[in-house]
Amino acid sequence: MPIDPERLLNWPFEDLEHTYTARDTILYALGLGLGADPLDEAQLRFVYEENLAALPTMAVVLGYPGFWVKDPATGVDWKKVLHGEQGLEVFKPLPAEGTVIGRTRVTGIIDKGAGKGALLLSDRDVIDKKSGDLLCRVSGTSFLRGDGGFGGSSGPAPAPHAMPERAPDLSVSIPTLPQAALIYRLSGDYNPLHADPKVAAAGGFKAPILHGLCTYGVAGRALLQAVGGSKPESLRRMDVRFTSPVYPGETIVTEIWKGEGGAVSFRAKVAERDVVVLNNGRAEFG
Amino acid sequence: MPIDPERLLNWPFEDLEHTYTARDTILYALGLGLGADPLDEAQLRFVYEENLAALPTMAVVLGYPGFWVKDPATGVDWKKVLHGEQGLEVFKPLPAEGTVIGRTRVTGIIDKGAGKGALLLSDRDVIDKKSGDLLCRVSGTSFLRGDGGFGGSSGPAPAPHAMPERAPDLSVSIPTLPQAALIYRLSGDYNPLHADPKVAAAGGFKAPILHGLCTYGVAGRALLQAVGGSKPESLRRMDVRFTSPVYPGETIVTEIWKGEGGAVSFRAKVAERDVVVLNNGRAEFG
Repeated sequence: MPIDPERLLNWPFEDLEHTYTARDTILYALGLGLGADPLDEAQLRFVYEENLAALPTMAVVLGYPGFWVKDPATGVDWKKVLHGEQGLEVFKPLPAEGTVIGRTRVTGIIDKGAGKGALLLSDRDVIDKKSGDLLCRVSGTSFLRGDGGFGGSSGPAPAPHAMPERAPDLSVSIPTLPQAALIYRLSGDYNPLHADPKVAAAGGFKAPILHGLCTYGVAGRALLQAVGGSKPESLRRMDVRFTSPVYPGETIVTEIWKGEGGAVSFRAKVAERDVVVLNNGRAEFG
Repeated sequence: MPIDPERLLNWPFEDLEHTYTARDTILYALGLGLGADPLDEAQLRFVYEENLAALPTMAVVLGYPGFWVKDPATGVDWKKVLHGEQGLEVFKPLPAEGTVIGRTRVTGIIDKGAGKGALLLSDRDVIDKKSGDLLCRVSGTSFLRGDGGFGGSSGPAPAPHAMPERAPDLSVSIPTLPQAALIYRLSGDYNPLHADPKVAAAGGFKAPILHGLCTYGVAGRALLQAVGGSKPESLRRMDVRFTSPVYPGETIVTEIWKGEGGAVSFRAKVAERDVVVLNNGRAEFG
C-alpha cells in the first residue's frame, strides 16, 4: 500500500501529557555522560537535585508520541525508516521538573521518487501544562526509505545548512560510556536496536548503536560548554542532520565554527573512526 | 538526650508499599556497572527488558523506610551514624517488576559504652504484595558512634564471620564508573554525601563516596558471576561488614574462598589503594 500524504498530514495526534521528575531530568543527563567528573560543578548542576537544571536538549524526549509510523494505518514501511534531521527551537527554559503537553503534527511529505524514498517532516510543541506557555518546538525529519514514488510533490526539500570551508574554530571531545545507550534509553526510547545485539545484527550493525538523539544531546553539551558558558538557558536553536551512527563507548568530537551574532555552525565526528556522524549543524545562543 | 532502647526496639514502623518497574530494576543494575560490555548476554539480562531478571541484592533498596534515625524522637546523634553491616537472606527470587511491602523492625541495641557508641540491629521483610509471600529478609547493623553509655546491655554482639587464613580461591575485579554514585542514588538513597563535594568534604572525604550498598551490590555481582553461574536465583544469603568507603571510579576486587556446601567466604578491596572495604563476608548459594 503506498502512503497517502493527505492522511499523514492530518494524522490525528492527541495531546500527550508528560510528567517528569528531578530523577528523570538527572537520568537524561547521565545518559549523555554528565557526571563523569564528580567534582566538576558545571556538570553537577545537571545530575544533582540541588539547584538542578534541565539540559535544553531534554526537550526531545518530552511529550514524545512514540514511534507512531509503526501503525499499519500510516502505510509506512517502518523498518526502513531512518532519523534524518533534528531541530529544536527554545522559547523558555525547561523547568527541572514538571508536566508538559506534547502536541505533534506532520508538516510536510516530500516524494523523492520510487526507489529513492520520501521525507516526512513533523513538529512537536512542548507546552508547560500549568502556564500554557510554549517552551520549545522540536522538529524532526524522517527518511522513509521504502515509501518513495507515491505521486507526491518532490519539494521544496529543506536545504541543508551550508558549512564553512575553513577549519573549525573550536573542538570539544566527549567520550561516551560503553553502556551509554542502555542508560539513555531509560529516557523513553526503548527501541531494541540500541540494546539487543541480535536486533542490531539484523539491522547490519556489529553492536547496538547509540540513539541519534543521544549523539544530538552530546553535541548539545559540547556547544553549551564551548559557546553557551555552560548556561542551559543560553541555547536558542539547534538543528542538525544525522549522517552515521555512533557506537556506545566511542568519543564524539564536536567541531564548531563561530558565525554572526550568537550563531554557530557545527558537525560531529567519531574520533576512533574519523566518521562524520552529525553534519550541517546550526545553533543559536543568546 | 540519651537514647531509649525500649523506645527504639518498639519504633512504630508502618508497612511501606513499594512499586518498582522494569526501568527501576534496570537502573539498579546500571548503578552497579552492569552493561559495560553491551555484547555480554550474561550482563544484558539485568539491563534490558527482554527476559529481564532482578539482581538479588536489589532487595536492599526495596521497601526501604529511609534514614529514619534522623527523626529527633529517636534520640540518635544521626550525623555520627555509620553503616556497619549488611545481610540478606533470600527465600524467593525477586520479580523483575512488582509491588512489595517493606516491614521493618529493630531487633537489638547493644551498648558499647560511653565514648564507644552503640549498635542498632534491624531487619526488614520484603513481601510480595500480591501473593503475600516473604521474598527476602534484609538485615542491617548501624554503628551509632555518638550514642554509647546509655546503660544498656553490652551484648551479645554478633561475632564477625571468621575468614580463612589461606589465599583466596577466586578473585573478581570489577571497575566502577566515576559517575557510579550518581547513577546508584537514583535507586532511592539520595544522601548528598554521595553527590555533593561540599558535603563529602565536611565529612572528611576528598570526594563524594560510593554508597556502601553499591559496593555490596558490586560484590554480589562478583559472587554471582564466580560462584552462582550468573543465575540470580542461586543466591541464598549474603552477609558482610563494611570497613572503608570506595570512591566512584575505583576498581573493586572481590576475593572469594570456597567453603562447605554452597557457602563461601569473601571480602573486597579497592585495587588502586589496596584497602579492604568489605570484610568478614559470608554467602550461600544453592
